[in-house]
Parts: sequence; structure tokens; C-alpha cells
Amino acid sequence: MTRFVRYRSGGRVAFGIDENGVLSEIDGTPFGYKTTSVQHKLSDVTLLCPVAPSKILAVGRNFKSHVADRGQPKRPEIFYKPVSCLQDPEGPIVHPHDATDLHHEGELVLVIGKRVHRASKEEAKGAIFGVTCGNDLSERQWQMGPDKDLQWWRAKGCDTFGPVGPAIVTGIDPDNLQLTVRLNGEVVQSQSTADFIFDSATMVSFASQYVTIEPGDIIFTGTPGVTRAMKPGYTVEVEIEGIGVLRNKVVAEDNSKA
Amino acid sequence: MTRFVRYRSGGRVAFGIDENGVLSEIDGTPFGYKTTSVQHKLSDVTLLCPVAPSKILAVGRNFKSHVADRGQPKRPEIFYKPVSCLQDPEGPIVHPHDATDLHHEGELVLVIGKRVHRASKEEAKGAIFGVTCGNDLSERQWQMGPDKDLQWWRAKGCDTFGPVGPAIVTGIDPDNLQLTVRLNGEVVQSQSTADFIFDSATMVSFASQYVTIEPGDIIFTGTPGVTRAMKPGYTVEVEIEGIGVLRNKVVAEDNSKA
Repeated sequence: MTRFVRYRSGGRVAFGIDENGVLSEIDGTPFGYKTTSVQHKLSDVTLLCPVAPSKILAVGRNFKSHVADRGQPKRPEIFYKPVSCLQDPEGPIVHPHDATDLHHEGELVLVIGKRVHRASKEEAKGAIFGVTCGNDLSERQWQMGPDKDLQWWRAKGCDTFGPVGPAIVTGIDPDNLQLTVRLNGEVVQSQSTADFIFDSATMVSFASQYVTIEPGDIIFTGTPGVTRAMKPGYTVEVEIEGIGVLRNKVVAEDNSKA
Repeated sequence: MTRFVRYRSGGRVAFGIDENGVLSEIDGTPFGYKTTSVQHKLSDVTLLCPVAPSKILAVGRNFKSHVADRGQPKRPEIFYKPVSCLQDPEGPIVHPHDATDLHHEGELVLVIGKRVHRASKEEAKGAIFGVTCGNDLSERQWQMGPDKDLQWWRAKGCDTFGPVGPAIVTGIDPDNLQLTVRLNGEVVQSQSTADFIFDSATMVSFASQYVTIEPGDIIFTGTPGVTRAMKPGYTVEVEIEGIGVLRNKVVAEDNSKA
């Protein structure tokens, strides 16, 4: 089990390996690196989003507890989030000035380590490099209100609608992790990924039948239970067993330009 | 008016400026470069996809002639195509083995030259670097059949579902170009971009209210009229006035691995 973080220390951005709060800087990325002798205290650095994918896949309706009466999917129901929506651990979630129903969706995020194209489940399993926490922010009116958009580009894709982190963790089973979301300290989502409708290997394998997945690409795996609307000032935490806590504060969009 | 192409010559990949079939290699990209003394004949090189975007936006239902009875949109209806779907001019469109209704959608593609975030229409207009041709391949059953997917990830996003090229052309008006699509030589789509429901500046400005658009990002602008299903062996050409012809052949997916 290795914990990779990306961070800024002074003016310098690097990846490091976190061992009990001590960071050992690496030269390269988690997918290929040399160790260095540079060390920092975790508490002295600013953590950054630990991934730089060429694309972001996301799976909807992957927990029975979230599907409600909308019908269980026959196959993984996939959509894209744009890379421009990524946000750092502790970075603000910007509440668009015209959003009225912005929800958290705490999710496990798979980090892919090998190019996969039409992979079997076994090959797909071997291509999962590690896991991290993600928040698949969702504006429910744009997603499914009476005046909803045709597709979820805005509902799921606005700037800052994809915080990811705090660490990529390797060597733990993606399909057996407790996921907990707290809103202003109150537990609002809590379930194990053992309850996925489609397990990690199935999601990766199915997506790869159509879309080649590149090393570094990430997959949001769906959210459990019921989500709540958030307002500027709220703090949302996504905690996953073995990974840690992804904490972001919702802030109002500066609308002075509009 | 400048025509930028990207090409392979021998083992070497570069951008060049095309003047009447003579390529002058540039050192850099269309967004920033130095001229060189290296020249090639256009007919001696293999053209490559001229863009490398961080994301691909696309606008649906942007011609009245294509909307039919589905209702004219109130605002640009946007979706994402993954960067993995890009294909070279003359590169194959791979017909997935389980696709049954694969359609062409000839479209003008905007190439963005400046970062835009919450841009006015005037700012948006100034951020459009140039234009090229694109084919927004669409599997209609996955998109809107009785067993359709929840989102268009597969319908619009399979590998090779986004041929773009042959050249990025600057200095022409995106909103007044004749677009023609030929299927095996027969004209099947033909309309001017003057008939856009939302013009180029409106599309870019609206998208940028929510999603920051980066230099190099591209926007497919919607297809006119009626499209047709294609089978392996078909050749589809998207021709736009002032840009040229984007020609791709449909080939069957090699299904021997499945």
C-alpha cells in the first residue's frame, strides 16, 4: 500500500509518497518515478489534485440505494466530466450564481494505470492503479428539473464540480471500502463499495469496449443513498476507508462581472 | 487567412502552413511558432488531426433543419466528446461490432485560441482562433433508441467518432460558410452556417459561463438536415467552404478479440 500525494511547497509542485505524515518527494509521477532525498511534513504543504487525466469517466446509478424508483441499469451508465472541473483537496467548490439545487455526490474514484481497450474484466482489474476520493457535484435542476439540459454537461461539469484527492492509494480493494459523506459535520451518505451494482473491473471493462482509457484517466464510480442541496458556506467531506478525507467548502460565485 | 495543417513526413510530426499545396513547416503550434525553411509538398505528407484539445465541447440541435419535431432549444445544448475519439483526416471510422445505426454528422468545428471564462459575446468572438471540419459520428440507437443509454457517452464518444481536419483556417467568418456532406459521393447534407440557431460567439460565450475553455479546445457546432446510417465500406466527406474536405472511410471493427 502506497499513498501518493501531489503538493505545492513554496513555489514548487511535486508528487510525494506520504508515510505517516512525512512526504518523500518523487521525481516523476506515481506511474513512473525515481525516489529523492527531499522530505516535507504533510502539514507544511498545500495538497493539490493528485490526478491529471486526459479524460474523466463517471458512472451513474451504481448503488441500489441511490437508484430509487428510476430502475436498475442493465449496464454501467457512463458520462463524461470535463478535465476543467477538477479541484484540489481543500479547494473551493464554486456555487454558480444561477444554480439553485447543487448537491454533493461522494464517490470512490478509480485511477487507471495502463492503456485499456476492449479489456476483459481480468485485464481491467489489472489496469486499476489505485483509488482516491471524489465529489461528483451535481446541479439537480440542470440535470433533471422541468427545464433540464439535454445532457449533463453543466449539471456535472462546471468549474470546480470535480474535487479529487487527497491521495492516490494503491494496494487496497476498490470493491470493499466504506464511503462516508459529511455535510457540515453531519453524516449524510454512508455505504460500502461492496454494494456497487457493477464492480470496478466491470465498469472499466465495459467502458473500454467503446472508449480507450489512457494511463492517468479516472473513473468516478457512483454515489450511494440520498444527497442534499448545499449553499455557500457549507463544508462537505468525502471520507473513504484507507484513503482519507476530501474536504471542500462551497463558496458563492463572484458575480460582479456578469 | 492562414491554413495550418499537422502532418507526418518520414518519422517526423510537425505543424505547417499550407499555401497552394506547399507546406512551410513551423516550429511550435498554430498558437505560437517560429517559421522555418523546411518545406514539403502537401501531396507527399500524411495529414494528422490538427488539434490536441484538453476537452471537446459539442452543440446539439443547432440547425432548424435538424431539430425536426424535437423543439427548438432555448439555449445551446452542449455535450462532451472524449479526446480519445479524435481521428485523423483520411483515418478510418471504426464501426463498432455491436453498433446498428451509425450516422455521419458533418459539422463546422471552432478552434479556441484564448482561455475564456464567463466571456461576453464580443470576448468569445475574439477567442475563436480558427475553424476546421469535423464529423460528429453518432450511433442513433445508443443515443435515442428504445434501449438508449442514459447519456451519449458511447453514442458520440467511441474511438474514431471524432474525425477533425484537414486544416485549421484562420480569418474566415464561422457564421457564413457552406457545409456539404457527401456519402459515397452523393450529397446528403448541405446548408450554410448562416442558418445556425445560435451563432459561434453565442455558443462560446454561453459555454464559458459554466466551463472554462482553454486554448486549443474545440467546439463542434451542430449538424444540419437529415443524416443517414452508414456501413463498413462507406466513404463520408465533410466539405466546408474555405477549409476543404475531411474524408473518412467506415471500416468494420476487428472483433476477433471479443
